[in-house]
Amino acid sequence: MVSPHDRTRAVAWREDALELLDQRRLPGAIVHRRLTVAAEVAEAIRNMVVRGAPAIGIAAAYGVVLAARVRYAEDPHCWRERIAVDLAMLATARPTAVNLVWALRRMEGVIAETEGDPVGWLLAEARAIHEEDIAANRRMGELGAALLGGRCAVLTHCNAGALATGGYGTALGVIRRGYEMGLIERVYADETRPWLQGARLTAWELAQDGIPVTLLADSAASALLRQGAVHWVIVGADRIAANGDVANKIGTYHLAVAARYHGVRFMVVAPTSTMDMRIASGTDIPIEQRAAEELLTFGGQPVAATGVEAWNPSFDVTPAALVDALVTERGVALAPDGEKMARLMAM
Amino acid sequence: MVSPHDRTRAVAWREDALELLDQRRLPGAIVHRRLTVAAEVAEAIRNMVVRGAPAIGIAAAYGVVLAARVRYAEDPHCWRERIAVDLAMLATARPTAVNLVWALRRMEGVIAETEGDPVGWLLAEARAIHEEDIAANRRMGELGAALLGGRCAVLTHCNAGALATGGYGTALGVIRRGYEMGLIERVYADETRPWLQGARLTAWELAQDGIPVTLLADSAASALLRQGAVHWVIVGADRIAANGDVANKIGTYHLAVAARYHGVRFMVVAPTSTMDMRIASGTDIPIEQRAAEELLTFGGQPVAATGVEAWNPSFDVTPAALVDALVTERGVALAPDGEKMARLMAM
Repeated sequence: MVSPHDRTRAVAWREDALELLDQRRLPGAIVHRRLTVAAEVAEAIRNMVVRGAPAIGIAAAYGVVLAARVRYAEDPHCWRERIAVDLAMLATARPTAVNLVWALRRMEGVIAETEGDPVGWLLAEARAIHEEDIAANRRMGELGAALLGGRCAVLTHCNAGALATGGYGTALGVIRRGYEMGLIERVYADETRPWLQGARLTAWELAQDGIPVTLLADSAASALLRQGAVHWVIVGADRIAANGDVANKIGTYHLAVAARYHGVRFMVVAPTSTMDMRIASGTDIPIEQRAAEELLTFGGQPVAATGVEAWNPSFDVTPAALVDALVTERGVALAPDGEKMARLMAM
Repeated sequence: MVSPHDRTRAVAWREDALELLDQRRLPGAIVHRRLTVAAEVAEAIRNMVVRGAPAIGIAAAYGVVLAARVRYAEDPHCWRERIAVDLAMLATARPTAVNLVWALRRMEGVIAETEGDPVGWLLAEARAIHEEDIAANRRMGELGAALLGGRCAVLTHCNAGALATGGYGTALGVIRRGYEMGLIERVYADETRPWLQGARLTAWELAQDGIPVTLLADSAASALLRQGAVHWVIVGADRIAANGDVANKIGTYHLAVAARYHGVRFMVVAPTSTMDMRIASGTDIPIEQRAAEELLTFGGQPVAATGVEAWNPSFDVTPAALVDALVTERGVALAPDGEKMARLMAM
């Protein structure tokens, strides 16, 4: 039985197992999957049962707890050697979001230090990662909403909401807080092809909260921005390079170009776990290519002629120069660049 | 029985009836519909059995032939009064493409002049409109291909092909000719939400001709343009205002903004029947809003939560300033403006 409060909770630890809300089934069905071994977690990340950079990181952290339970039971002496396989499997489940690797590194820190049965310690760390993420979202919600200025409409792409995080959301956290403060009158949501995160997840999530939401085809964004009602485009991120370049859902860059052309401001909301200071610029961020079938079929039915090729990158890179505000839990960088990024990370 | 040659023929007059290739069923099924009265033609235009500005005009012209046959049989004296209802019905079937009104005006010219049974005269005029459109496409194919410069990839949006015209195509006419001349190595096609004309029609049409085509999500266009392989974006038009502003399928403007940002040239290919010199600028072009269900459902299945709103304009307006070349059957206007438009129309 799921209480209404839990409906948008993407990731939860419940009765010694990881519970994921199956995002492939939304909004038609609320289906929770109970995962008890790490291989299931890697598979759920790969298949997008759970998606969204912070949510992937949290799910992977709980995946390490599940792995440790099995490996410690198998062999209380050599479990550290054995769990390395699970960590590698989780780390490679999806390539672009760096929060996955970041969360695993935190879990590795505990693995290195712990004595005896590690499960309790690892669960505490996974829970800390989870709770810190929610707290970061709340903080970013405040910081981002404070930038909005006057009452306006906003446009978002993909889903950077409660479903993509530990709860509350990054971009949707700012939108939730902005709406609460009476600063946002309407949210426009790109449907976000090919996976329709906007239609299936963002619209559903905002509707649950009673926030007015209007869907549009991704390609209609410039026609909308030209009308002048939208003052901010607000998005999340999957990985941010040391110079402030932002990898996020395919279409984000297209939208950033349009925002700049129309004089609409562009806000990226992401916790510092999304920053990858080892990567100099967006050019070096690995971009996941997903199956052509995501474009060539719909609900299992072919929509294109047989033999047609498809180019289906799951992410694109928005150069820092097109970002007006980068909101993190440690503070805001206006017109982010390498120097401002370094300052944020040193805080 | 349909010969392979006829497969991409959207509109044909066959055995005293109008035959339309049902574009809602492509590419899964090749279904031809036989229409014998004008009301069926108006309905087919409204429901997008036939779509594409020039094809709509041609279908409406044949619709007038069907209307005249009925009205003249009803009353050989007052058929002109009676057919006015049919003309009005056809004219309002869809609001944005001006070729519809243009074709009806040509048919009205014949109605005004003809003596006795008008059917033969009207059929001759409809056939002339149809054949002139194909000839115009061939001519635009030559003129547009001559602009391409070196060998490159091109990107197109929606379907401005044989399916959207009397045959051969406007944007796809240029692409067909450019490919034939060895100037185009690959065509990228936006899938074109919500109706998926790119996936369902353009990819199918080009595959029939053996032209290499790669589909992409509309929102991936900027990521593609950034790679540098695409030198031209080539699109059709539904109506062009006297100042050169172009109404075309929603997303065209978004693409034009991206093309300009990336230094990629933007070509609009449209016969002069698409020019509406009575309309000063794009602001005054009526933009059709289509049903929210096009975004909220897919293949009859809901994709968004109940109660979510959708904004679904079928067209947008690209300001002339973003158009590098306007190709018509009368010649090319580089960086079109009011003066160049007037010169083209006076030719």
